[in-house]
Amino acid sequence: MPSYRAPVEDVLFLLRDVLGFHSRDNLPGFADASPDVVEAVLTEGGKLADTVLAPLNLSGDQEGCRRNADGSVTTPKGYKAGYDAYAEAGWMGLSVPEEFGGQGLPHTLNTAIQEFVSGANLALGMYPGLTQGAIAALLVHGSQEQKQTYLPKMVEGAWTGTMNLTEPHCGTDLGLLKTKAVPNGDGSYSLTGTKIFISAGEHDLSENIVHLVIARIEGAPAGTKGISLFVVPKFLVNEDGSVGARNGVSCGSIEHKMGIHGNSTCVMNYDGAKGWLVGEENRGLAAMFVMMNEARLAVGVQGLGQSEVAYQNALAYAKDRLQGRALTGAKAPEKAADPIIVHPDVRRTLMGIRAFNEGARALVLWTALQSDIAHRSPDAKERQAADDHLGLMTPVVKGVLTDKGFANAVEAQQMFGGHGYIEEWGMSQFVRDARIAMIYEGANGVQAMDLIGRKLPKDGGRAMMAFLGEVQTFIKDHGEDEAMKPFTAPLQASLNDLQGATMWFMQNAMANLDNAGAGATDYMHLLGLVAIGYMWGRIVKAADANAAAGTGDKAVWEAKRTLGRFYMERMLPETALRLARIKAGAETTMALPVEAF
Amino acid sequence: MPSYRAPVEDVLFLLRDVLGFHSRDNLPGFADASPDVVEAVLTEGGKLADTVLAPLNLSGDQEGCRRNADGSVTTPKGYKAGYDAYAEAGWMGLSVPEEFGGQGLPHTLNTAIQEFVSGANLALGMYPGLTQGAIAALLVHGSQEQKQTYLPKMVEGAWTGTMNLTEPHCGTDLGLLKTKAVPNGDGSYSLTGTKIFISAGEHDLSENIVHLVIARIEGAPAGTKGISLFVVPKFLVNEDGSVGARNGVSCGSIEHKMGIHGNSTCVMNYDGAKGWLVGEENRGLAAMFVMMNEARLAVGVQGLGQSEVAYQNALAYAKDRLQGRALTGAKAPEKAADPIIVHPDVRRTLMGIRAFNEGARALVLWTALQSDIAHRSPDAKERQAADDHLGLMTPVVKGVLTDKGFANAVEAQQMFGGHGYIEEWGMSQFVRDARIAMIYEGANGVQAMDLIGRKLPKDGGRAMMAFLGEVQTFIKDHGEDEAMKPFTAPLQASLNDLQGATMWFMQNAMANLDNAGAGATDYMHLLGLVAIGYMWGRIVKAADANAAAGTGDKAVWEAKRTLGRFYMERMLPETALRLARIKAGAETTMALPVEAF
Repeated sequence: MPSYRAPVEDVLFLLRDVLGFHSRDNLPGFADASPDVVEAVLTEGGKLADTVLAPLNLSGDQEGCRRNADGSVTTPKGYKAGYDAYAEAGWMGLSVPEEFGGQGLPHTLNTAIQEFVSGANLALGMYPGLTQGAIAALLVHGSQEQKQTYLPKMVEGAWTGTMNLTEPHCGTDLGLLKTKAVPNGDGSYSLTGTKIFISAGEHDLSENIVHLVIARIEGAPAGTKGISLFVVPKFLVNEDGSVGARNGVSCGSIEHKMGIHGNSTCVMNYDGAKGWLVGEENRGLAAMFVMMNEARLAVGVQGLGQSEVAYQNALAYAKDRLQGRALTGAKAPEKAADPIIVHPDVRRTLMGIRAFNEGARALVLWTALQSDIAHRSPDAKERQAADDHLGLMTPVVKGVLTDKGFANAVEAQQMFGGHGYIEEWGMSQFVRDARIAMIYEGANGVQAMDLIGRKLPKDGGRAMMAFLGEVQTFIKDHGEDEAMKPFTAPLQASLNDLQGATMWFMQNAMANLDNAGAGATDYMHLLGLVAIGYMWGRIVKAADANAAAGTGDKAVWEAKRTLGRFYMERMLPETALRLARIKAGAETTMALPVEAF
Repeated sequence: MPSYRAPVEDVLFLLRDVLGFHSRDNLPGFADASPDVVEAVLTEGGKLADTVLAPLNLSGDQEGCRRNADGSVTTPKGYKAGYDAYAEAGWMGLSVPEEFGGQGLPHTLNTAIQEFVSGANLALGMYPGLTQGAIAALLVHGSQEQKQTYLPKMVEGAWTGTMNLTEPHCGTDLGLLKTKAVPNGDGSYSLTGTKIFISAGEHDLSENIVHLVIARIEGAPAGTKGISLFVVPKFLVNEDGSVGARNGVSCGSIEHKMGIHGNSTCVMNYDGAKGWLVGEENRGLAAMFVMMNEARLAVGVQGLGQSEVAYQNALAYAKDRLQGRALTGAKAPEKAADPIIVHPDVRRTLMGIRAFNEGARALVLWTALQSDIAHRSPDAKERQAADDHLGLMTPVVKGVLTDKGFANAVEAQQMFGGHGYIEEWGMSQFVRDARIAMIYEGANGVQAMDLIGRKLPKDGGRAMMAFLGEVQTFIKDHGEDEAMKPFTAPLQASLNDLQGATMWFMQNAMANLDNAGAGATDYMHLLGLVAIGYMWGRIVKAADANAAAGTGDKAVWEAKRTLGRFYMERMLPETALRLARIKAGAETTMALPVEAF
């Protein structure tokens, strides 16, 4: 059976030595997150993931969810206990303000825990994950009354949350949505319509489900300008805050999916369901985007989590499975064959996944830290810079970490040969589960368009200029250091590719917007490659310093250097290919008339 | 429901105008394959695939195979009729000599039909596919008596075949196998042992199953030098050729797999089963390789088939699904939104898959034609050259077409957004089914090692030199032609990368064999990229000639040119990345001690 061990040590190293987490004590919540507290929090979170959630992963996949005749949904055996363990330990509100029952700790820590939970059990982790997204939206856009009504219950995990966007005929293009909201005259609305692909839409884990739903108020403008956001509880809430009558919303069916079988993906029927406006009329999409941006980062983290668990199991297999002999002579002559980890093609796979995971983890935590700074810093300029970073990197974290997370799960599965294809080994599940992360919360092509169409040109390209400047400064600061040259030289070459691509878009996208669209996915990956490359530069710098200071285990710091070099030599050069594709432009991509397809 | 349409026209174009199939009338069987006959054969084969096999694909996946208490296996509803339709039309023996009931037509045609069958229904197609592999092995290594006993029945489809290699503790490293064969004294042997992952090992489609099994004769040398091949029928064959008593071989269980649910993947228990030696004692691996090489090409074709069917369904969806507006202004202003085919990121995906498929199809058919020449030409030198090509390209066809076939299925699935993740749409099945092709018949890492360790150095690198020379000649012949420069120039750059990589291995692999191993997969893909690029050069040349001559539909020939340019601009440049990785060598790949993982 597959297993999982949360990468607690790596997160501690990144926060402490690479990202300067503990130098942020001026921010609210950070002073409480002393090194001891952080270590305790991560260790506890890791333990939950390893010992409670991970053991439910394979069985949850095999059992799946079941919709009963009365419309209720039964989750797999053990899910309720797993969810309760999560909720009771207070993880839901880790970074939620204390006034709503949370702990007010940095979101960065919550992000680390999200990786652990996603790696251990993606399908189960989605129930609290969606709830955290709904909490975030209500925190920003909910009225004081709405916050008081819903947040404490959600933070304690007694109620869960969902987001209802997609309809049968529209996903990406929400302007087409048809769900209607009719004012009841008492401040509430009656919602009618069908939503599909609603994760955690119905289940047996919580006593109430708080649906956040976008709909069109009668008479609202067409398109995205007429969309409003509503909160629609499964059970209406009584004056005293207790659960009341059943609302007019129900689960019509659950989907038969490729993966995440333990999560109920529901068709939700709104049949005159009572809802309340969240935020302003016709400004629902903006409100929903708060939730979606939070969710997009979390989905990127899911990609990383699946990549990590797939890696760990492939590594265990590579050390255990005896097959063939090393090209350079037997390494385990006393055995019938060598463990397959001696084979360079197996090593290449393991090194590639691990180099990605550790660099991507740094990128995720760095971005989460910027999110904390953007929301908590007293310095407006610092807030703006952090918000710029957050906006720029959100599509990259979502798109690149899920694309690569899936690809890595496939590579890890490959290492098992035929056994990887057999469900009992669990590798197939990692692949099938990881697949969804490339799709939901905006398919990765949409992320790429968000990056190139919105985030890149915003404020005259300020966010990208700042990123390019920061990486350039790092190279300049360390470029004369012989020990850093194997890192700064390739990083400079790839930074040039990124600058070249950015310049090319500036010169060619205005003339033909298709030139931007045709290169968007390549650009997203190009930026991801450079960002992770920059992380590796900083990781190695910190690891070298630790080695020089005699801190910790020298072998660990040496491994960081080797992994960093592997990244620079074998992975980062992909930027040149991405640039070549971008510069090819849209011409051949768009040349065929539709009839010629 | 997904659909499939066999690419008959494209195959006809490739055979007739690109590969010079009809100029080979000097070879046995080719004279019978006149243009009319070829068109009739392919059209009929296509019809079977489109109308009989494809409609059983999704239901077969959902139903799967069932092992009954008595050890028998029930295949999905409709499979028996589908299999019978295939067998009765004579497809099993299309290229088998007439003396055994076949039609003696070129294997090239059989390869085209294999693509159609694999694209329509991979799981069902594996039953005849394995049978064709077993026929090939018996044709080459079977005694005259064995051929007479088994081949006519197999060719008519009354009996099917399997290959039994893998055991629980060994797949790639067959030298470890434990299945024992004890001579009975009457020329037969008693086989005892357990084989796993036996595709089509037990089912209800045929009246007998002819297992080809590798085992170790008592007292045989250890390792691969002590392996012999046996034929072990499920039912013993009476003197008169009819089916007799049940043999001591049975299906112990069937696997629960990620995909190809319609094919029974069996654990086969040999319990003193009666078998007969095929070929020489202790030379079983060589005999099995005949079957495996045939099977490897067929598996590469499966990758192409899945890529093609996934493309076709994604294309239909892209034309149908309305979502968003074109960046350059509405293309269907009368509708609520434009079809998503207007979006450059969608186009990029469609163009990429199609450019791969058409180039890969040319490579497959070219290689199959070389197989015919290698087996049928009266000219020894021509036979040798063709055999060189076949050996060199077999791992490339297997490894590259299945890696890319899977990746393309994933890309096609992505185009469906959330719908792609729902099983009813069928895209998930293409991904899950395509996944196996990267694994079986030698995982792709093994293909890469076969290429670099065996095929490349063989006969002083003669096969690779011939390939490099052929591509160089093409470039030289057409390099001055302005119309061909968009093809010859990129091809030259990538050919240089391939030559550079080959040279690098010559200089660095002897000193450290790990340098070969660490670059093997990249080299396999590098060669595949160039080989398909070369095919595109030839395709465009032929398409241009057709356009100039006014033959056929001009729009088709123009599309070939556009697709070829797309390949050159966006796909072929990957060779530089592959070369960079190869030149990075094994150092960082192998540097970490095992304990540091």
